[in-house]
Order: sequence, then C-alpha cells, then structure tokens
Amino acid sequence: MQFETLDYQVQDGILTLTLNRPERMNAFNGPMRRELITAFDAADADDAVRVIVMTGAGRAFCAGADLEKGGDTFNRHTRTDQPEGADLRDGGGTVSLRIYECTKPVIGAFNGAAVGVGVTMTLPMDIRLASTNAKFGFVFARRGITMEACSSWFLPRLVGPMQAAEWIHTGRVFGAEEALRGGLIRSIHEPDELLPAAYELAREIADNTSPMSALLNRQLMWRMLGADHPMEAHKVDSRAIAFMGESDDAKEGVRSFLEKRAPEFRLSPSQDRPDFYPWWDERPFE
Amino acid sequence: MQFETLDYQVQDGILTLTLNRPERMNAFNGPMRRELITAFDAADADDAVRVIVMTGAGRAFCAGADLEKGGDTFNRHTRTDQPEGADLRDGGGTVSLRIYECTKPVIGAFNGAAVGVGVTMTLPMDIRLASTNAKFGFVFARRGITMEACSSWFLPRLVGPMQAAEWIHTGRVFGAEEALRGGLIRSIHEPDELLPAAYELAREIADNTSPMSALLNRQLMWRMLGADHPMEAHKVDSRAIAFMGESDDAKEGVRSFLEKRAPEFRLSPSQDRPDFYPWWDERPFE
Amino acid sequence: MQFETLDYQVQDGILTLTLNRPERMNAFNGPMRRELITAFDAADADDAVRVIVMTGAGRAFCAGADLEKGGDTFNRHTRTDQPEGADLRDGGGTVSLRIYECTKPVIGAFNGAAVGVGVTMTLPMDIRLASTNAKFGFVFARRGITMEACSSWFLPRLVGPMQAAEWIHTGRVFGAEEALRGGLIRSIHEPDELLPAAYELAREIADNTSPMSALLNRQLMWRMLGADHPMEAHKVDSRAIAFMGESDDAKEGVRSFLEKRAPEFRLSPSQDRPDFYPWWDERPFE
Repeated sequence: MQFETLDYQVQDGILTLTLNRPERMNAFNGPMRRELITAFDAADADDAVRVIVMTGAGRAFCAGADLEKGGDTFNRHTRTDQPEGADLRDGGGTVSLRIYECTKPVIGAFNGAAVGVGVTMTLPMDIRLASTNAKFGFVFARRGITMEACSSWFLPRLVGPMQAAEWIHTGRVFGAEEALRGGLIRSIHEPDELLPAAYELAREIADNTSPMSALLNRQLMWRMLGADHPMEAHKVDSRAIAFMGESDDAKEGVRSFLEKRAPEFRLSPSQDRPDFYPWWDERPFE
Repeated sequence: MQFETLDYQVQDGILTLTLNRPERMNAFNGPMRRELITAFDAADADDAVRVIVMTGAGRAFCAGADLEKGGDTFNRHTRTDQPEGADLRDGGGTVSLRIYECTKPVIGAFNGAAVGVGVTMTLPMDIRLASTNAKFGFVFARRGITMEACSSWFLPRLVGPMQAAEWIHTGRVFGAEEALRGGLIRSIHEPDELLPAAYELAREIADNTSPMSALLNRQLMWRMLGADHPMEAHKVDSRAIAFMGESDDAKEGVRSFLEKRAPEFRLSPSQDRPDFYPWWDERPFE
Repeated sequence: MQFETLDYQVQDGILTLTLNRPERMNAFNGPMRRELITAFDAADADDAVRVIVMTGAGRAFCAGADLEKGGDTFNRHTRTDQPEGADLRDGGGTVSLRIYECTKPVIGAFNGAAVGVGVTMTLPMDIRLASTNAKFGFVFARRGITMEACSSWFLPRLVGPMQAAEWIHTGRVFGAEEALRGGLIRSIHEPDELLPAAYELAREIADNTSPMSALLNRQLMWRMLGADHPMEAHKVDSRAIAFMGESDDAKEGVRSFLEKRAPEFRLSPSQDRPDFYPWWDERPFE
C-alpha cells in the first residue's frame, strides 16, 4: 500500500502503520484522515494482518491539527480535515469510529508528542505504550475549542471521570509518567526499546491466539461497554461461543494446549465470520 | 446442604462456598454449574447467611472448563455445562448472572489458578483477594473460542478497557502481582492467611451493617452501572432511603452509633423487602 | 451573596464555597441543601466565576446528616433536608444533580471528615484533593439506610465497582491514604497546603482555558458517560467543534499559542451558548 501521509508495512502478521509527515510533526490533515480510514479498511480485509502497531515517524507521534492556517485552523468553512461535503462533521471522530470498528487488536506506540486529535483518535486502540520522550495533551480548552473525536465517550471510560476531567479542564501537556499514573498508557520504555516492546506484545497475540477469537472478542468488549445489562453480553457471547466452540479453531486450541505446542488456527477473520455478525445495527451520524 | 461438586458451610453469618473437585483442579462442569445456582438460591433464602466467601479446595481455585473431552470440549452438541435443553446458551453466563442477582455481598478468595470460566464467573463478585499462589487467565483466544460468562460486560468495567483488552487479546496466564496492578483483585496474602483475610472482611460487614441495606445497596450499584443518567439512581435511592429511613434498622443504626455500641439490625432480607423491590423488569435470555 | 450555612467568596475568577456550620461539623441540613443549590445557580450565572473550589470551615468537611434527631434522623416524615413538599425525594440527590449540571469545573478540597451525604454529594465534582486530616465514609449500611445522592451511579464509575463495593458494604471510615489508593481523591496535602494546592489547579484552568470550552466539555463528559455508543459523542462534538471552531475563542486560542502568550478568551459562558445547547432533554424526577 502506498500513502502520502502514512507508511504501511506488513511483516510476519504485524502491520506497522506509521504517521509519516515528520517535517510537520505528523500533524493531522485531510489526506491523513482519509488515508487512515483506507489503511484500516485494508488491514481488516487482509488476513495476513493479525495485529496493528501504530507509531509516528521522527520525533513526534502526532502534534494534532496542522496549525498552518493559524486562527482559522478549526473554522469549518476553511478546515480540510473533515469528511467531504460535511462542514458539520468532525474529522477526527471519523478516524476514532473507524478504529473502534476495527477487527484486529491495535497497539499504539507513542514515540513522542501526541496532542489534540493526535491523542484523541488513539483512544479506541486496545493498548497504548510510550517512550520516555512521549508527551500528551488534551489541549482543546486552551485553543478555545472542545474535546472531539468521540473522546468524551472514550476518555472517562479509559482513565475514569476524575482523571479525564483534570486533563480536559486544565488542557495541560504532560509527560509519560503522568500518563502512566493516570492509566492512559500501560508502560514506559527507552526510545529505542519502544517498538521492540510493542512488537513483543503483538507477537504474544499473533503467535498464540485465533484471529476469529480476536475479532469477536474485540467487538464484544467495545459494544458491551455501552450495554445496560450483562444479559446483553450473555445473549451475544452464547452465540459466539456456540459458533467458535464447534469450529476447527476450538479443536486446535484445546489440542495444541494439551499437546503443549503452538496452535495453528485456520479460520479466516475476513471470510468465515458467523451469520450473526455483526449483531448490531449501524449507528448513523444523524 | 449436600453437594457433589461444592462444599457449603455456614458459620456465624458467613457462608463458605468451596469449589470441591480438587482431583480435577475444580474444573467447571454441568453439575457444578447447576449446584452453584442452587447454592446461591439457598444463600439468598437464608437470613443466617450475611456474607458469602467463595474459594477452591486443593491447589486450584477453578481451572476452567473440564477438558476431558479434548477438542470437543466447547462443542455445544457434546458439552454438558449448558442449561438443559439449551444448546445455544453459555453455561458460565448463567452462573455470572446468578451472582449478579445475589442479595448478599460476595467475596472471592483465590487460593490458586482461576482460568477461563474459573475467573469470568467470579467477575460479578463484590470483592476479590488472592494468595501468592493464585494465577489468572482469560485464555479464550488461545483456545480458539470467545470470552463468555458475560465477561465482555463485567471485565472492562472492573479493570478498564485497556487492561481488559490486553488480558483478552494475549490470553496470557498471569500471577497475583499483575492481577493486583491491573485492578482484578484488591490484595495479596500468604496462602495460609488468605481465608483469614477474607473472613476479616466478611466479619467487618456482618458485624456492623444492616442486611437489608446490603441487599438494596448491592442491587443499586449493579443496576445503576447500566443506567444512562444519575436521575435513574435518584428515583430509586429516594424510595430506598424513604423505606429504610423510617425502619427499625435506621433507628438502631443511629442509636448504636450515638451510644458507641455494636448495632443489632432486625429487618429480614428475605421477608421484609420493600414493595418497590425489585424495581426492574427481568431481562429475558431471548 | 449572604448565606446561613455557606460562605461564598469570589476572587480572581475563583469561587470559594465553604460549608459553614463548624459548630456542627458542617452537618448537612435543610438550609444547607437549599443554599447549595442557590449558590451553584449563582455561580453558573456569574461569568466572573471560572472555577469553583468547595471546602469546609473548621475541622470537618461535612459530617453528613445532622443527627440531632437521633433515631428519627432519616425518617421522611420528620427529616428536613428534603425538597419542600416531597417526602419521597432524597435531599442529597438534589445537590448531586445540581453539581452534575454545573457549567464550571468544580474542585473539592477535603480539609477533614466527609461522611455519608458529606461525601456522596461531592461525587459529581470534577477533581477531589484532601489534606492529611481528611477521612471518608460511605457509612449508610452501618446506619441501617442506603446509599443515596445518586452515589450508586457515580461511585462505581469513579473508583470502579470493586472498590465501591468494599466501601459501601463495609461502611468503614477510612483515611486519605486509602482514598488516594482507591481513586476517590487525586492527591494528599499537608493541612495548610490544601487550599493553595486547590487554588493552583483552579488557576491553571482559569488562566489558560476558554470558559465556553469548559462548559461544553464538562457536559460532554458527564452526558456521554451515560451514552451507549461513541457515535452519540460524535454527533454532539461535531456540532460543538463547529460552533467553537469559527468563534473568536478558537482564533485567540491558536494565535496566543503561536505567539507564546497567555490567551484572553471573550465568549461569555452565560450569554453566548450555542443554539444546540442543551442537546439533552431534562430528565424528570418521576
């Protein structure tokens, strides 16, 4: 895959997706918005991708919206990072929702600053880890705008309402240690050990688990985070475990465990989805 | 109470419920599923039970599904831990939902391995503590199946979506320290100090609090965790505190506090429930 | 503003709201209930108030319900801290809901004991910090009543269902260290450093951020905590960022950042609210 703002490399089951505008601190713009959605579409369609690792080229992860338009940066009549034809639809949110819908585990490897949309669009990733160089900032209130990219839904659920409120209301930029204490990331690494740590996690997933299990588990977790009663989980997981339980993946999973060997799962996450998937109705924008 | 797979002992207000198939690492099977539900029914009906402590006999807490059927372990046409007549209903979920509905505080004392359904069915317990020998594993993706027992609803709410995702997607088995850091358990104890610590917590509850308060508070917390607005809590807790506030338990609670003595609460949690309880409609399986 | 049970002082954008019945440990009663709602109404209407810091006079924050009526303290036919004419509506909940609806960031500075309604009414505050003298207790089950003030909605979301269950079921009184470990407060301070620390946080907000951003962000976070899908956030934050993005506050926010100077935001949070605000329907009590 060739992109203008991204680098897309698949090796041994792991897609490394690199935000690639290092001369602009990987700032978010229209092409990046469109290409991120295209890249996640491609990753979901490709069974060779088991896990996605996302990082940034150069010294930043993503500095947020490109401020080259100055005071008009966030003006909907001039900004270019919105969906085409929509002057009232936040562009960052379209990326967040695309990652929320992704069928593969997504790991964020924060090599440097992740500010504004540079961090909010990553909240639907599954696991976030950072280098000692990482910085984070939910700076919206300091720029005179509002939290976006669905972060009002994701952030309080990820770090709790009190930590979310402190970061949102102060708009401060903070380092990896504060991010770790607050629950935004799961570990801190020396800069040259960040990607190896991300790949170690990715390998732990890719080498040991069923891709179809990952697909179903990922959607079970995100969808049930919005459900009002555990019975809603029981309804769906009963169907999911009935489907998987009689599949070749379940046979292989138990046999490989009893034989103390690595499993070889065969179900195709793009081709072999169960009839009941998706079990939800699409939620329209309006 | 006599059980095949459980030990059920009530003493001084505390029910100790012990998973009791030590020769099979207390693996979960059909009889255990049915007996757990029966045991919780009995505990709810018996005012002599103030708090429930659940643990495992021998060196495991519960090793998960019994794998004696090998590759067909999770095949709905041959597995035996489902409700009778239901080949599409997950058995672990029926236990999770039963514990969710329990009217007494439930403490999990993890003496050893709790893997698969051995840990997911415990997520609706109120408090979990573990010995240094405990291990945990949400191993579903390694077995080629999916998370079950309503764990997609409970786990992200208990430990946050990021920690839940890491445990579910890697399927790794981890020790008590990682469980403590991740928020799955509240403390770690030497093996011979685990049950004493659980009983100390149980006594703190049984000796000082109103059983009817526990019943109402427990359902308030679980039901409101699914509510979309705090007004829903206000509607119910206004009725609950009106009911309790004019009861003998409230008089005794304030008087014993002012007189600096232990309270003697009289309301029967099985007989004296308020008219508005339950305030919810049962949620059917389908 | 003159109050019987409160002290209300605005200086440099910060309202210090002090519970002021030190001779009764700032116990909650009918006048305090009414005056708290009046004080938050006044603060919301006054653009000179950017941030609210709430604390207690004397050695307590708020000892909870005033127990001067002894065993009849919580009897709805005699208690006086309910809304007028309502014998079935919990008074603490009316304060919690008022703080939930507040349009300014609210910081709780716990100088001493906060027990019963003295802590539950503070759960909708954004940030809580405490002195080494602080104590907390969700003592309802020990008094023979139930958790109130919508705490069944707020507490499990703030500290997780397991920590909430332990505090609610034991009803124990605990110190600042346990509150910090459990996630109820964000930091502990020496007694004479508590208010300075609260004001430092308040200044960080007041000096750097847009009041209109705070208003929109605060409601986005609380309302979306009850939403079932991130698309609901996307719908609202798209409108919010469209409104703010073309405002003078966004221009000033980006320009001041690029010019490395403090911003001067002009939008009035009481006068310049967008047409779509509020985007929710009021939720009636019954």
